[in-house]
Amino acid sequence: MDKKEYIIRQLGRTKNKRYEAYVVSRIIHLVNDFTIKFVTQQYVSRPEGRALTDLFFPQFDLHIEVDEGQHFTEHHIRADKVREADIINATGHEIIRVNATLSIEEINEQIENVVSKIKTLRCADTFIPWNIDIEFKAQTYIDRGYIDIADDVAFKTIKDACNCFGHNYNGYQRAGASHPDDEIMLWFPKLFPNGKWKNEISADEKTIVERNEDDAKATEHVTSHLRNKDKHKHKRIVFAKVKGNLGDTLYRFRGLYELDTKNSNPVKGLIWLKISDRVKTYKNDL
Amino acid sequence: MDKKEYIIRQLGRTKNKRYEAYVVSRIIHLVNDFTIKFVTQQYVSRPEGRALTDLFFPQFDLHIEVDEGQHFTEHHIRADKVREADIINATGHEIIRVNATLSIEEINEQIENVVSKIKTLRCADTFIPWNIDIEFKAQTYIDRGYIDIADDVAFKTIKDACNCFGHNYNGYQRAGASHPDDEIMLWFPKLFPNGKWKNEISADEKTIVERNEDDAKATEHVTSHLRNKDKHKHKRIVFAKVKGNLGDTLYRFRGLYELDTKNSNPVKGLIWLKISDRVKTYKNDL
Repeated sequence: MDKKEYIIRQLGRTKNKRYEAYVVSRIIHLVNDFTIKFVTQQYVSRPEGRALTDLFFPQFDLHIEVDEGQHFTEHHIRADKVREADIINATGHEIIRVNATLSIEEINEQIENVVSKIKTLRCADTFIPWNIDIEFKAQTYIDRGYIDIADDVAFKTIKDACNCFGHNYNGYQRAGASHPDDEIMLWFPKLFPNGKWKNEISADEKTIVERNEDDAKATEHVTSHLRNKDKHKHKRIVFAKVKGNLGDTLYRFRGLYELDTKNSNPVKGLIWLKISDRVKTYKNDL
Repeated sequence: MDKKEYIIRQLGRTKNKRYEAYVVSRIIHLVNDFTIKFVTQQYVSRPEGRALTDLFFPQFDLHIEVDEGQHFTEHHIRADKVREADIINATGHEIIRVNATLSIEEINEQIENVVSKIKTLRCADTFIPWNIDIEFKAQTYIDRGYIDIADDVAFKTIKDACNCFGHNYNGYQRAGASHPDDEIMLWFPKLFPNGKWKNEISADEKTIVERNEDDAKATEHVTSHLRNKDKHKHKRIVFAKVKGNLGDTLYRFRGLYELDTKNSNPVKGLIWLKISDRVKTYKNDL
């Protein structure tokens, strides 16, 4: 998918809110800078399950929410506040709300303020221009020296993720791969029950549970991991297999996790706890 | 419907062309001037039936067409050229085509040119700012002194049209009304077969045929009109009952027509020929 396709498809998605398309398209066209990435209907994790926001700028950790009539009942105001606090607490992101019940002039003024803010953020020295042609390439992250949760990193294939850690694969399909650090394994799981594995990630993404659906296999899997640390590494860099928000398959970076040996057992399964949001990358030395 | 509602609803309509919403919303947001009226999916009359254009600026007689992939086959290029020539010939309007098969940068450059052109047109001394609150009011046209086809005039009720010609109605429901000039009648027909009348307007809007569906009534109607010019005026100012492009009922000004006494007969019905695109308005003298 090229930048044009991405932009058109993102702008074509709405949650059927009446004013959402107006506000979102106006912000994007007035910012008028396609070195700034945007995502419509962005999933955000929060303790009480996930939430969708109308527009997200990953480079600025900034979400825009369009509030229509129904948001102004007492019930909704309270629910929105809880949701907003959850998102801020879980991610540290900022949320700006656009009140779409006002006049067109007042809506436009709010949008003007959002646009000014984004243009100011764009001027920061730390700004990395969006480049869709390289954002899925391993070399981008090798050059950067790290992969960080804050950068919302995802790859189209397992080999691209592997090649950030010293590999030079042209193709790779297995759910695990080696890492230059002997204690670490690269892991590409489906983090939802998938028939064979009953995996789960907590809404705050701090805990992953991994368990085979079959009880006998689960027991063998857990005990073997707990016993044999050399063969079954106790640290994993996790790239979860997900559907991207345009329906494409992606392997999304989730962080570095470590096995919780105390709480893992054959009944619960293996419990993995996040120990870092950022991991070092390695160039291929061959 | 206020301006906000109008803008949101117009921008919410698309012909399911992939890039249309992008191009249309980008033009509107970058022009960023709601004294400029716009219509999406505007009907345009042409000899071979009507055509739809993607975006129309009535104050500038300017249409924008978004060309996607299918427009670039030889067959479509030819068909588009015929269609375009038809529209230009029938209306004198200008059509600018935006080629949406190019890169996003090239699409944006074309849009930038359209936006510049509109901003230049906006500076003309003759520019009348769009004001949705007054555009359906009789007083606007009384003050202007005339109603002209070029201004794309429509009223929400029959009384509003009547009140442009010296009446002071609070309500009026009949399909005909008097005019200060004794030779002229105001007429508010449905210009399509409607069960009682088999009316028709030609695609170029120069000819209206009026005939009762019932043969006996048609004969009586036609002969009585041809014989008694005092009772049945031979000139009519026509406001056709139509669905506006947002689904609302409107009485749209079509011009001043005169009865073609030579060609009218009980078989064909009454034939009305357009004799003017502009009519004088009158203030109420009471």
